[in-house]
Amino acid sequence: MTDTPLTQSLEYARANQARLLEKFYEFLRIPSVSTDAAYQPDVHRAAEWLVAELERLGFDECAALPTDGHPVVYGEWLKAGDDQPTVIIYAHYDVQPPDPLALWQTPPFEPELRDGKLYARGAIDDKAGVWGNLIVFEALLQTTGALPFNVKVFFEGEEESGSPSMAPFITANRERLAADLLIISDGGCLPPTPEIIYSARGIISAEVTVTGPEHDFHSGLGGGVLHNPVHMVAKIIASFHDDNGHIRIPGAYDGSIPMTEAERQKFAATEDRTIQMIKQSLGDFRVWGEPGFGFMERSARTSLDVNGVYGGYQGDGVKTIIPAKAGFKVTMRLAPGQDPHDIARKLEAHVMGFACDTVDIAVKIGKQAGWGVLMLQDGPIIDALDRAYQAGWGQAIDFTRTGGSIPIMGMFQRELNLPITVMGFGSGALAHAPNEHLLLDYFQRNIDTAIHFYHALPQAISG
Amino acid sequence: MTDTPLTQSLEYARANQARLLEKFYEFLRIPSVSTDAAYQPDVHRAAEWLVAELERLGFDECAALPTDGHPVVYGEWLKAGDDQPTVIIYAHYDVQPPDPLALWQTPPFEPELRDGKLYARGAIDDKAGVWGNLIVFEALLQTTGALPFNVKVFFEGEEESGSPSMAPFITANRERLAADLLIISDGGCLPPTPEIIYSARGIISAEVTVTGPEHDFHSGLGGGVLHNPVHMVAKIIASFHDDNGHIRIPGAYDGSIPMTEAERQKFAATEDRTIQMIKQSLGDFRVWGEPGFGFMERSARTSLDVNGVYGGYQGDGVKTIIPAKAGFKVTMRLAPGQDPHDIARKLEAHVMGFACDTVDIAVKIGKQAGWGVLMLQDGPIIDALDRAYQAGWGQAIDFTRTGGSIPIMGMFQRELNLPITVMGFGSGALAHAPNEHLLLDYFQRNIDTAIHFYHALPQAISG
Repeated sequence: MTDTPLTQSLEYARANQARLLEKFYEFLRIPSVSTDAAYQPDVHRAAEWLVAELERLGFDECAALPTDGHPVVYGEWLKAGDDQPTVIIYAHYDVQPPDPLALWQTPPFEPELRDGKLYARGAIDDKAGVWGNLIVFEALLQTTGALPFNVKVFFEGEEESGSPSMAPFITANRERLAADLLIISDGGCLPPTPEIIYSARGIISAEVTVTGPEHDFHSGLGGGVLHNPVHMVAKIIASFHDDNGHIRIPGAYDGSIPMTEAERQKFAATEDRTIQMIKQSLGDFRVWGEPGFGFMERSARTSLDVNGVYGGYQGDGVKTIIPAKAGFKVTMRLAPGQDPHDIARKLEAHVMGFACDTVDIAVKIGKQAGWGVLMLQDGPIIDALDRAYQAGWGQAIDFTRTGGSIPIMGMFQRELNLPITVMGFGSGALAHAPNEHLLLDYFQRNIDTAIHFYHALPQAISG
Repeated sequence: MTDTPLTQSLEYARANQARLLEKFYEFLRIPSVSTDAAYQPDVHRAAEWLVAELERLGFDECAALPTDGHPVVYGEWLKAGDDQPTVIIYAHYDVQPPDPLALWQTPPFEPELRDGKLYARGAIDDKAGVWGNLIVFEALLQTTGALPFNVKVFFEGEEESGSPSMAPFITANRERLAADLLIISDGGCLPPTPEIIYSARGIISAEVTVTGPEHDFHSGLGGGVLHNPVHMVAKIIASFHDDNGHIRIPGAYDGSIPMTEAERQKFAATEDRTIQMIKQSLGDFRVWGEPGFGFMERSARTSLDVNGVYGGYQGDGVKTIIPAKAGFKVTMRLAPGQDPHDIARKLEAHVMGFACDTVDIAVKIGKQAGWGVLMLQDGPIIDALDRAYQAGWGQAIDFTRTGGSIPIMGMFQRELNLPITVMGFGSGALAHAPNEHLLLDYFQRNIDTAIHFYHALPQAISG
C-alpha cells in the first residue's frame, strides 16, 4: 500500500484505537436517557461534552442548540471551500433507558470490553454513530489537515423519545442546514452481508371510539332494539380492506411513489430469503397480501393495521351485555411521497362516513405523523458507498427497503429537500435491550469504510 | 261478605299473619346460597326444613330429591281426585350471595321489618314464592280441609347458579311431573300495575378466537404482508347483520314462532310507555333495529350481540403491532320455538365459513343453551288470573313479553310439554343486591290473589 493521504488516515485511526476507545468510554459513561426527566442533566452534560470535542477538532459554530426538548449538538467545518460540497452528518447522542437493570451482566453505564464486544447502553445505538464520525474527522484532520468536504454536524438528543421537537427545529434552521447531502449515521450493518436501507414508510395513527348507551346494557332487554357499539366498530374495521387486502379508503394511496420495475425484479429474486430472515428475527408467520404485488412491494406500499380493539367483557365465561363503548387503535404505513396529514384526513373522513343517529363515532388522529422517505438507491454516491464497503468489509452492500418508519429521515427530506443516504457505525446486538454491545472489529471496519467513503464523496457528489 | 270457603281462606291468612311471618323468618335465617360451596350444608338444611313443612301440611312423597347439584324439594297432594286437574307449583329456595356485606343496613340473614318492608337476602327472590305458596296451602287446608286441585310442589335449589342439573332432572322425572299446568312462582309484580310475563327468549353463547402470527408482530415489517387477526374478527362480526340489523347467518330465524297480529297491535299502542320504563330502569339509550318491526317485536325476535371484543394493545398511546390473536364473545337471544342447539350449529357454521389459510379461526359454543318460552297469554286460565289480581290488587294485569331469558321455563316447556303461567309473591326491591326487601302489604295482596286464583283454577282448566 502506498503512503497516500487515504492510507495515512486509515493508519491513524488504527494506531490510535486504544486512546480513542478510552475517550469513547468517557462518552458512554454519561447516561443520556432522553425519555426520563430524571436524566435531563445528563443529556445536557453529554451535549456539552460533544460541543467540547467538536471545538477540540477545530469545528466552528459549535453549540448545544436549544429546542423545545433536548438540545441539538451542532458544529460546522466549512474550510473545504465554496467549490466543495457540503454534507450534513446526522447521529443521535441520546440513549434508551437501561431497564430492566437486573438483566445486565455489567452496569449499563460502565462500559466493559469482553471477547471483542463492548458492552454499554448506547454502545451501538447511537453513540457509535456519533463517536465513529468524530474518530473519522480526527483521522482525516490529523493526517491531511482538512476534511474532504464541508461538514455540518447534527447530533440529535431526543431520537429515543420520538423526536418531538425536530420538525419545528429543522424548519426554523432550514438555512443553517442547507447542504448537498445528508448522511444518517444511525444503526449499523451486521455480518456477513452489509445491508443498507434506502426507503422507509411514513406513519399515521388514530384512535376511534364508538359510544352507545350510557352504561353497559342488559343484552336481553337491549338485543334487537339497541345499536351495539362493537358492531359499528367491526363494520368500520371491516370496511378498511376488500377481500384482496386492498385498502378501500378513498384516496388511501394518493401521492405514493411506486416501486420501479428494476426494484420489483431485484426483490422478486431475493423474496424467499427476505421472508426467511424476517421469520428468523420475528417468529413464524404466514404470508398474506394483495395479489399482483411481490412481498417487498407489499411491504413498501401503503398498509393499514388495527393495533388493538376493545369493547365490553373480556374475562372468563359469559356476560350478557351490550357494551356502552368500544374502540380501536389503528396505524397506517405510508408509501414514500404520501402526505401524512392528507391521508389522516382521508382516514378520518372515511370513518366519519359511518356516522349515524344511534351511536356516536369519534376519531382522534395521533399527533406524530411521519413522512415516508426515499433515499439514494443508485448513482455515483451509492457507487462510492458500495466501493467503500468493499474496501472496509471486503463485501458489496445489499441495498433494500424497510416497511418500518424512520420519521426523522422523512422530516429531513421533506424540510431540506436533499439527497440522503445511510452510513452507520453501530454493528452489534441488543440495541434497546439489556447487554447492548458493539462488535469492535466491525466498528473498526466501519471507520475504515467511512474514511474511504468520505474520501471519495466530493467527486461522487460533483460528478 | 258472605262466609264462603273463599272468604274463610282469605280471613285465615290475614288472621295468622304474625305467626306465619315468624315462621318465614326461620326460613330466611337459613343462608341457602347455591353458588358458594361453603353454604352447601345450609342449602341442604333449607331443603330439609321445607320437607318438614310440607309433611306438616299433609303432603305425600315429601323428599329432598337428589340431583347432580342441589336437591329439588318435592311433595304432592293428590287428594283432590282424578277428576280434578294437577298443577305443578315451581319456586326456588336458594338465594344469591349476600355480598357486598358492608352495604347491608342489617345483616342479610337476620330478617328485619322496617316501615312495612321485610329486609333479608331471599325475602323476595324467591323465598317469598316458596313461603307464599305454603301460606296459601295452609289457609286452604285449614279452612276447607282440601286443596282445590291436585298439587305437585317443585322447589329448586340451584336457580341462582344457573340450574345446571335441572334439564337432566326434569327429563329423568318426566312421569312424576306429569300435570295439566305449571305455575312459576318466581319474581313478583310491582305497584302500581301488576305486570306478568308470558314469553321469554332463549339464549346461546359462543366465543370466537382468531390467531395469526406466533407473537405480536412489528406492524412496519408485517403491514401489508401479514393477515391481521383483528381484521378477520371485524369481518366476521360485520357479517352478522345487514345494514338494517337483520341477521345474515343462514337459518338464524329458523323455528321462530312469530308474534300474533293481536300482540303486534297491543304492543304498538303501549310502545312509548315500554321504552320509557326501560330507560328509567336501565339508563338512556337510542332506539335502533330492523325496520318493519315494532319495539316489542324486535325484543321478542332473534337477536345477536357481541358482548365483548378484544385483541392487541388497549393501553394509552400507540403500539405499532399486528396482534397475534383477537377474539370476541357473542350471545344470541332466540325467539320461542327455536332450537338452541340447531341455531348454535348454524352460528358455528357461519363463522367457520370464513376459514382461510392465513389465520386460524376457532368457535367454542357455550354449554348452557336455553330454549325460549311461550306461556299462556289468553284463555280461561289467564282470565282467572286476571280476575284474581283484580280481587287481590284491585287492578287488571298487564301481560307482556320479556326480551330476556329464563332457561328453567324453557326446560319445563320443552320436557313436560304443558301450559305455563306465572304467579309470583315477591313484590319488592333490590333482588340480587344489598338490602333486598319485600313489601309486606303487597306480599299479603299476592296471598289474597293466589287464594282467589287457586280457587278458580279447576274450573278454568277444565272449562
